[in-house]
Amino acid sequence: MKIKIGFGVDVHQLVEGRDLIVGGVNIPAELGALGHSDADVLLHSICDAMLGALNLRDIGFHFSDTDPKYKNIDSQILLRDTFKLVKEKGYVLGNLDATVILEKPKLNPHIPAMQKTIADILETDLDNISIKATTHEKVDSFGTQKALKAYVVCLLSKE
Amino acid sequence: MKIKIGFGVDVHQLVEGRDLIVGGVNIPAELGALGHSDADVLLHSICDAMLGALNLRDIGFHFSDTDPKYKNIDSQILLRDTFKLVKEKGYVLGNLDATVILEKPKLNPHIPAMQKTIADILETDLDNISIKATTHEKVDSFGTQKALKAYVVCLLSKE
Amino acid sequence: MKIKIGFGVDVHQLVEGRDLIVGGVNIPAELGALGHSDADVLLHSICDAMLGALNLRDIGFHFSDTDPKYKNIDSQILLRDTFKLVKEKGYVLGNLDATVILEKPKLNPHIPAMQKTIADILETDLDNISIKATTHEKVDSFGTQKALKAYVVCLLSKE
Ligand SMILES: [Zn+2]
Ligand SMILES: [Zn+2]
Ligand SMILES: [Zn+2]
Repeated sequence: MKIKIGFGVDVHQLVEGRDLIVGGVNIPAELGALGHSDADVLLHSICDAMLGALNLRDIGFHFSDTDPKYKNIDSQILLRDTFKLVKEKGYVLGNLDATVILEKPKLNPHIPAMQKTIADILETDLDNISIKATTHEKVDSFGTQKALKAYVVCLLSKE
Repeated sequence: MKIKIGFGVDVHQLVEGRDLIVGGVNIPAELGALGHSDADVLLHSICDAMLGALNLRDIGFHFSDTDPKYKNIDSQILLRDTFKLVKEKGYVLGNLDATVILEKPKLNPHIPAMQKTIADILETDLDNISIKATTHEKVDSFGTQKALKAYVVCLLSKE
Repeated sequence: MKIKIGFGVDVHQLVEGRDLIVGGVNIPAELGALGHSDADVLLHSICDAMLGALNLRDIGFHFSDTDPKYKNIDSQILLRDTFKLVKEKGYVLGNLDATVILEKPKLNPHIPAMQKTIADILETDLDNISIKATTHEKVDSFGTQKALKAYVVCLLSKE
């Protein structure tokens, strides 16, 4: 069995007048995430982790943030397209572990919905999709509600 | 053999009048780590990495930072409780690799003591517990002694 | 087969009057990376990830940033020396996935050259050396051209 490791990290600014979409879930919040697409920091990090594991460049390479086609696009579409590339290479997801850094609101109540969305797209069990939420302890932009961040690690395998 | 990957990251502010406890070791320092528990940034990241690998939520979920029971608690207790959950799932630690970001003091002299503490709790060889220390090159809060951070990656396995 | 996971992260300030060397490639840029060596944030992170995987301490331990011997040194030498330690332990690289955070210039045109340099040193296929480039969305020092950062995860294996 071949095993490959991948890592993704993504950052978006928080601003007024935008939705806060994380893991495909629209979270009620005062501030939303700024970006060309729907700015889903979690799904973007997952895409980058899977692309990186198989040396398939990165999310900006496949889905350019200056291409009008991707303006405000639902990032679930990007995740689905990314996973197609993974399957074309003959790999499946082992597991992924994500950490979202956001000062507020609390993401915990929404994690089961995010997991289900992601597990469905990646054709795997819920247990292979871990999502952890934490604050940045009031430190720098991530700790003062000016930005949010996500980290993802994953293992992909091929028989 | 099943292999799972996990990732943890933790941040604490540095303030006067608190101890600086990292990896279970009380480090002589001008500033200490602020937090509800003993604010051990390294042990918290290890807990999160192991919980994430097995989709067992995160450290805040198991040990709430508003619960008086955990006020100033020794995080070695949290690590021990976390590892119980890992063992209940039938997994052992493969290895973990940690990086602690702290401008000063130097952590290097204390790393062997941290490794021993952690290896004992996680019932593994010293060689499976890597701890690296680095500065943040004077950049932002982590580079100006206002905060410290730790990252941990781990592999857990099950026969 | 034994599999070990490693993680490296490195930060350097961006300043005038220094070269910007990333992954062994000298990138045309207004600002360069400050450091004792050539300040190659990507190669340093790779060294740290591999050292961490095998509990061989960290890059600062092996190549002190106060030792005149390493003043302005080409970090490819450090990577080569690090990989020697990996081979002495009987391990080879499975794959690594790197993410470089830099606001500008764009690194993408230089990634193939970086991959070739690194794959040659680590005696592996290009496909095992993934390098992703992203911005920090104008957030904090990494988003305002005051610093750059790299993250690397890797798997090492031994038959
Ligand atoms: Zn994004
Ligand atoms: Zn903590
Ligand atoms: Zn460096």
